[in-house]
Amino acid sequence: MQEKATTTWKDVLEFPIGGRQQKPRQAGLTMVIDKGLGLTEFRDLLEVAAPYIDFIKLGFGTSVFYPAAILREKIRLARSYNVDIFPGGTFFEVAVLQGRLNLYLQTARELGYTFIEISDGTIDMSRTVRLAAVRQARAAGFGVITEVGKKDPRDALSEALLLSQITGDQEAGADYVIVEGRESGQGVVIYDGRGAVKEDILASLLAGIKDLDRVIWEAPQKQHQQALIMRLGPNVNLGNVQPGDVLALEALRVGLRGDTLRTTLKVAEVS
Amino acid sequence: MQEKATTTWKDVLEFPIGGRQQKPRQAGLTMVIDKGLGLTEFRDLLEVAAPYIDFIKLGFGTSVFYPAAILREKIRLARSYNVDIFPGGTFFEVAVLQGRLNLYLQTARELGYTFIEISDGTIDMSRTVRLAAVRQARAAGFGVITEVGKKDPRDALSEALLLSQITGDQEAGADYVIVEGRESGQGVVIYDGRGAVKEDILASLLAGIKDLDRVIWEAPQKQHQQALIMRLGPNVNLGNVQPGDVLALEALRVGLRGDTLRTTLKVAEVS
Amino acid sequence: MQEKATTTWKDVLEFPIGGRQQKPRQAGLTMVIDKGLGLTEFRDLLEVAAPYIDFIKLGFGTSVFYPAAILREKIRLARSYNVDIFPGGTFFEVAVLQGRLNLYLQTARELGYTFIEISDGTIDMSRTVRLAAVRQARAAGFGVITEVGKKDPRDALSEALLLSQITGDQEAGADYVIVEGRESGQGVVIYDGRGAVKEDILASLLAGIKDLDRVIWEAPQKQHQQALIMRLGPNVNLGNVQPGDVLALEALRVGLRGDTLRTTLKVAEVS
Repeated sequence: MQEKATTTWKDVLEFPIGGRQQKPRQAGLTMVIDKGLGLTEFRDLLEVAAPYIDFIKLGFGTSVFYPAAILREKIRLARSYNVDIFPGGTFFEVAVLQGRLNLYLQTARELGYTFIEISDGTIDMSRTVRLAAVRQARAAGFGVITEVGKKDPRDALSEALLLSQITGDQEAGADYVIVEGRESGQGVVIYDGRGAVKEDILASLLAGIKDLDRVIWEAPQKQHQQALIMRLGPNVNLGNVQPGDVLALEALRVGLRGDTLRTTLKVAEVS
Repeated sequence: MQEKATTTWKDVLEFPIGGRQQKPRQAGLTMVIDKGLGLTEFRDLLEVAAPYIDFIKLGFGTSVFYPAAILREKIRLARSYNVDIFPGGTFFEVAVLQGRLNLYLQTARELGYTFIEISDGTIDMSRTVRLAAVRQARAAGFGVITEVGKKDPRDALSEALLLSQITGDQEAGADYVIVEGRESGQGVVIYDGRGAVKEDILASLLAGIKDLDRVIWEAPQKQHQQALIMRLGPNVNLGNVQPGDVLALEALRVGLRGDTLRTTLKVAEVS
Repeated sequence: MQEKATTTWKDVLEFPIGGRQQKPRQAGLTMVIDKGLGLTEFRDLLEVAAPYIDFIKLGFGTSVFYPAAILREKIRLARSYNVDIFPGGTFFEVAVLQGRLNLYLQTARELGYTFIEISDGTIDMSRTVRLAAVRQARAAGFGVITEVGKKDPRDALSEALLLSQITGDQEAGADYVIVEGRESGQGVVIYDGRGAVKEDILASLLAGIKDLDRVIWEAPQKQHQQALIMRLGPNVNLGNVQPGDVLALEALRVGLRGDTLRTTLKVAEVS
């Protein structure tokens, strides 16, 4: 067996399998949720997995709690690896509630964030306020991700309303629209209480969405990721992915994991 | 939009929201369980989250397994960030079983631990032995945290007995009393088999506890933390928090997360 | 209380409790699944826990996604700590499907992997092909771990077939045989849909296995680990252990955790 210094796994596989897009990509985006990684862990993650991460969200209002120097360094690191980064939507909602959207955008910009998430997962917000926020964030130089869907099942929206929000947000200039899945993926929008995809709701949404490549499905657990990849292919946009799951998700996408290998590869006869 | 180098998120929010106490604090303590973090991860955690961590427990008997130099360095690091640190109660129970409490306390002191946990979650221990251990640990210069509640549901104690233990421990000089929640928060003391809070038991305990600020509720998962914050406010003492959840818990406490934002902020009219 | 610079926890305990074997050990092996740890986390893990880790598997096909320098460094680090390391079996299955087993083994060897996992968890593979792969991997200088059990419950094999595979693989030269447990430990081989051990199937397997010390049970969650330790003792071989759980598992093995303390220690009278 001859040693060959330049051998890599890419020679072993017909790679990428199944038409997975490379970065910068138009679809198949992975958005990671960071609930408070330290600086070394964050650097570790980027060093290993940056080619498979398109967005990092610093979840909820956690941005507030970091020592300033560490927050700046995390943002700088993400950008140096060509990963977009933004603060969680709940923080935006609090800023709006407090009447400080201007200061919120100014601070986010000064810190180096590249995107803003605009959501009303918890608070009530009129359509007018929402679209004004989209315009204001764009004018301030940010990419914009809006989110549709309520966090609390008691507030659940109809498919028609969800669709009209998705289309409206895209027309108003949102780069991407996230479909709420929370951290649990249970009992929210397309997921039932046990985390299984509600096929009827998903089908309704798919029938009405005009630009699927600009929709990101929050899919925090493997079962959600697997279900959506089986349904929508390896280049579905997925969000709220745990930092430690990025390579495992990539394996799922390209069929290097049992669950998707079975279907994404044409199983050759082995005998 | 004017850049301002000194802008921080604190300017954006009326912060802290909801009267969250700052460190050193009399209530609203967060106790983290460390199941075996490496040195870099541990330093990362403290660097990012020390202002939100009051205690770190090296869970179970894991203290035994560390290379000596790493264990010492972890303890030194925690103390340098003003975080108290102690070995898990099961280890104390084993020391008592082996008749080596003296050596246990001596070793813990020499290593630099600042607190001792005194529990009988697994073994049987008479009231006399328990209170003698509290006194002995205090005499050796440690802060003392006792724990009430059995780990095995077959051994469950009555509310009356739990209350008498909590009061007795506090009177005997325990700085804090932990209510057992295990790593799962399922089927133990105040949690039912699915992890929901048993309202009747919690109410009984709350009615009888004299010094609530010196009780720490083990609340390993978000559902437990959320339920107790909704019930007891942002300054409830919570334990067995996962290292990666500290900032997310802080967001829960102050209403920067959907679940608590809804109730902890007076929702202003947005139109 | 006299300070003693050389005091360690080993003096406090009669250690190891319950006859736990030390490394290199013939039984009681722990195999960790790594889903994509960064270099610092990986080094951290080894620094703290290498004495308790016998194997690290880079799960699924994640090996493909690492930057080459980082993958090489991870493999080098594992070996420097006397930990064997191998790529996940699904990746092997893809290589076989693509007719590139030779190149797969050559690349694995050039990268420094010490073991090869041979599985058919997802694809169909004849007995002839399987045993030829075992021989080929051994001839290339690798240790060999085979895996039995299908990932998909629809493909479940009978106990008789599992046993004949285990015995056949061991006779053909496999160093170890893994019993499939997946990442979930639910609804697969010895685990039911809720993750509890199916006693009847486990008993059948135990009755038929000739060399139990060369069988590794995938046991991803604490409930699986605890059940198997209670059933088979502290020196059972366990696999798919999460990196962050290694010290907690070691505590379970030796009775330094409530669940096993109760039974593995003879509970002395404390009064």
